[in-house]
Parts: sequence; C-alpha cells; structure tokens
Amino acid sequence: MTTLIAYKSDPVRGAVWHDIFSREAPDLRLVDWAPEGEAAQARFLVAWTPPEDLLRAMPGLEALFCIGAGIDHLPVAALPPAVTVVRMVDPDLTASMVEYVTMAVLALHRDLPFYRTEQAAGRWTPRAVRPAAMRRVGIMGLGVLGQAAARAVAGFGFPVRGWSATPKDLAGIETFAGDAALGDFLAGTDILVCLLPLTSATRGLLDRRLFDRLPDGASLVNAGRGGHVVEADLLAALDGGRLGGAILDVLAAEPAPADHPLLSHPRVMVTPHVASATQPAGAARQVIQGVRAHLRGEPIPHAIDRGQGY
Amino acid sequence: MTTLIAYKSDPVRGAVWHDIFSREAPDLRLVDWAPEGEAAQARFLVAWTPPEDLLRAMPGLEALFCIGAGIDHLPVAALPPAVTVVRMVDPDLTASMVEYVTMAVLALHRDLPFYRTEQAAGRWTPRAVRPAAMRRVGIMGLGVLGQAAARAVAGFGFPVRGWSATPKDLAGIETFAGDAALGDFLAGTDILVCLLPLTSATRGLLDRRLFDRLPDGASLVNAGRGGHVVEADLLAALDGGRLGGAILDVLAAEPAPADHPLLSHPRVMVTPHVASATQPAGAARQVIQGVRAHLRGEPIPHAIDRGQGY
Repeated sequence: MTTLIAYKSDPVRGAVWHDIFSREAPDLRLVDWAPEGEAAQARFLVAWTPPEDLLRAMPGLEALFCIGAGIDHLPVAALPPAVTVVRMVDPDLTASMVEYVTMAVLALHRDLPFYRTEQAAGRWTPRAVRPAAMRRVGIMGLGVLGQAAARAVAGFGFPVRGWSATPKDLAGIETFAGDAALGDFLAGTDILVCLLPLTSATRGLLDRRLFDRLPDGASLVNAGRGGHVVEADLLAALDGGRLGGAILDVLAAEPAPADHPLLSHPRVMVTPHVASATQPAGAARQVIQGVRAHLRGEPIPHAIDRGQGY
Repeated sequence: MTTLIAYKSDPVRGAVWHDIFSREAPDLRLVDWAPEGEAAQARFLVAWTPPEDLLRAMPGLEALFCIGAGIDHLPVAALPPAVTVVRMVDPDLTASMVEYVTMAVLALHRDLPFYRTEQAAGRWTPRAVRPAAMRRVGIMGLGVLGQAAARAVAGFGFPVRGWSATPKDLAGIETFAGDAALGDFLAGTDILVCLLPLTSATRGLLDRRLFDRLPDGASLVNAGRGGHVVEADLLAALDGGRLGGAILDVLAAEPAPADHPLLSHPRVMVTPHVASATQPAGAARQVIQGVRAHLRGEPIPHAIDRGQGY
C-alpha cells in the first residue's frame, strides 16, 4: 500500500513538492489536503497551520511536519504523544537566517538605522567606524540557526558569545548557559541577537530587566519571535538611551498595525517576518527522509522534545 | 639625523599616530604640519589634503602617503615623478570595506530598501526569499578591496564574478577583463558592486549604456567614488525599472544637498561616505614600514603607478 502524506500549505510551493515527491519518492504519495478527501486518511501531514480539531480530521495521523523552524504556534499539548511533531531544519532555512543575522549585525555595527533616518531628513552625518574587534556580539539561542549565525558573524572579526538554556560547546565562541550566567553574558554584549525558541520559559524574556543588564548603547536584533520581547520595555530602553538601536523581524502582532510605535521609531528597522524561509525543494526532501526513517521504525530527525517545547 | 615625517590630518587621530611613532619608531620623528615650521623640511608627508602648492611648501618631499584607499583627489600630475605617491592599504580599511559591501549586498538581496520604505508607510509586505545561489554578484574593481569583498560575498553562496581593467585570476571567482568583456560581465550580474579606482577611464563609466546591459531588476552598490556614476542615468534606470534598487556610499557632490533626488528615492539607501575607514594605528604602522623601505633604497609598498592612475 502506498504511504499517503497530506500537504496543507501554499499551492505554488506545493507544485515543487509534488515534483520532488514524484521524481525522488515514487513509493510515497503526496496528496493535497481536503477535509473530505483521501488526505484525511494520511499517516503524515505537512503544514504550517494544521486543520482545526486535527485528530478528528486525521484519525490515523502519526507525524506532523511543520513547515518552519518554530513550532510555538502549534497546539502541541492537544496532540496525543503518539503524534510526532517535527520541525523544519533545511539548509536553505539556515542559510537565509545566517544572511539576515549577518546583515542585521553589520547594519547595527555600521549605524544603518541612524543613516536611514539622516537620509530621510536630507542630512549627511558621517560617524566614525569602529573595528569589529571592538564590538561584541551575543547570540541567545544556540540551536542549528544560532550556531550557524555565530560562526558567520565571527568570520568578520566580531568577538562572539552565545547563551542557551543548556550548556553548549562551540569552537571560537564563548558560551554561557542558564539563568545564572545570563547577567555575565549580557554585560559583555554590544549587539544582542535573539534566536531563541518561543517557550513558556522565554516568552517576555527580553524585558526591562534584561535590557538594563546590557552595556549602555547596546543594540538588538530580534529574529526569534515577537513574543520574546516586551515591546513597551523595548521602546523605553530605546528612548532612555540604554539601547542605541534595534532591527526587528518579528513583532507581537503581525502584520503590525500601521501606527505601531516601533515602525516609526527613528532608531528601529523592521522587516515583515522574512528573516528565514524554507525553500520547497529542501523541505520536501527533509520530509521524505523523515517519513522513511519513521517507516523503518527509526526516530524522525528534528522531532521536537515535548518537555522542552522545541 | 632624525628622519622627519610631516602629519597633516585630523588631530584626534594624530594623537594615536604620535603614540605609535614614539613607541615603535623612535628613529623617525612625526611632526604636525605647519607652513612655517620644521615640518616644511620633512622628506615625507602623511595627508588626505596636501598643502597648496606642495613642492614650494615642501621642497625636500620624497614621498606622499595618502590617508585613504583612493588618490583621485590628489594633483598627482602636478607632482614631479621623483615624489612617490602611496595609497593606504591597511587591514582595517579592507575589513571595514568588506563589512560594508557584505552588508549592502545582503541588504539588496533581502530587499532592505523596499522594507525601509514599507516600514515608513506603516505597511507589512513580506516578499519571497530567493536563495543566494540564484543571485549573481558582480564586482567591478579587483584590487585589494575588491578581492577581499568577492571572497566574503562568495562565502554566503552567491555566485561571484569580477571585472577589472587588466586580467586577474581569483580562486572561485569568474573574472572578466577590459572593455570587450564588460558586456558579458554585466549580462550575468544581478547585484553590481563598484569598487573601482576613479581615473579618466572609469569616470562616468556607470551610465545609461552600462545599466542597460544589466538584467532587468538588477541593483547597484557604489562604494567607489561618486564620479563613477552618472546620477541622472542612475535615476532614470531606477525609475524605468531597469534597476530595482541601489545602496550608495558616495555621491557626485558630498555632502549631498538636502534635496538631492537620490536621498529621497524610495529604492535607494545612502550612507555618507563611511564604507571604509583607516584606523590610525594600522595606518601609522604602514607609513613606518613604507618610510623604512624607502630609506633602505627599496620601493615603497602600495606606491601608485602613475601610468594607470592608481
């Protein structure tokens, strides 16, 4: 019997998925999701937003592959433990995040938000260039994305440090772990990059207390989730001079309302949640490998740990 | 007799120069420029803007060390051939240019000028992310800066090509040389980076004819000189859709007038000539090495070729 995999996502990207499956995995059959169709019988689901009441919709579901690095939007707790939830970790997704973080760190290092505001006002205001060796970059979150971003940034000569919930050991990166080490990590961070997963432990972690532990004039890149940042505290830290600038790819509410104060702040650049993106071909191949591992009785790579929440 | 070296530049940075000279080259004496002082007797001059009527001001001048990568602002033709003109090639200057070019290429690749305009209008307009492998970067000018920038950009997976007046051979970079190859170079360039020296051959080279040879929607980074670009043609290419965007560190007139149309263009980002900067310590050490080479009767590294003009 052919193994069915339901696909519930963008149809344009879906064309690439169908192409990859038919050419590289003829033994697996990808079918587009429809509530009454055969997709409801599938053992596997590929989706960013699963159907409502997922277990009634797909009673035979064994694994849910999420199209994206974060799974914080999924009702994981409502799924029985027998359903494996898998995050997307494809090379394109990592590469696009590395591009974004490098661009944002360099932009803060080289005063781009300031120059943007000066340009808009018709002013020509050069500032001194500080060597990368004198700008310390601190990355919160040292998973696949955080590690790759740390390596790329270190390549420019920035001293890079990283913080994570559990201890990690990375060549050339000074690492800190857990709440007790957070203060030391922050005190030596001039550009803070948030690449944390959003969990109950990290929601709202970037608040006034955290900003107050950074050196004066530090700046922030948030390429994690809007929920990591207490936006009122961020605005106060920017206006009070604690933070010199910020580049944000995510906000608490997306799309952001047109009058959101962070959109009009002179030292903030905002991009509309585009830091990283899965490319359909790589994502399709990751799902094929995951399904085959599961069919062989092996664990699916990048399945989440429900205890940790990511 | 102590060798005199006149210093005519920023006094704040000059303090670092004096410190380096007194600690690392007590045999050489750095003296601040003054028209009537002993500096006028010096055999060497360090300056961005030399004194008017240089040979009358410093009749014993043997070498002029320019503080900066470009020497296009100097009256080289008015100096007798016996005066060696030396460009600054210090590691910090190269590193800061690599930072700037990488930032600008990533910003164009990831639509930052567009998002900046959307943010200012309160809009949230995500665009698809294109893999770096599908974005071809072409670098004009393959000197020390161009080669270092090409290597850094290639590290992100962009296919990189380079063009220069004379043939160069660079690992992993497709190179093109001379006028005859310019069309082929441009036809395969999605992001064009200008790092050329400004000479009579390159002034105004980035004009309508050149932009017309790029693929539709290509974009431009100018970190060379304002004189490379015909600004009216650049505006027409942006408004006609030939060029999708531009990031410019240099303009024909600097400081740019507040009502310059490139400053207010929705798809252009301008920085005030800050792409690269010499750090005083490294620059001072390069001058010490150059003076010592000259005193030993050896050629001074990074002396310009007057025939080429750079």
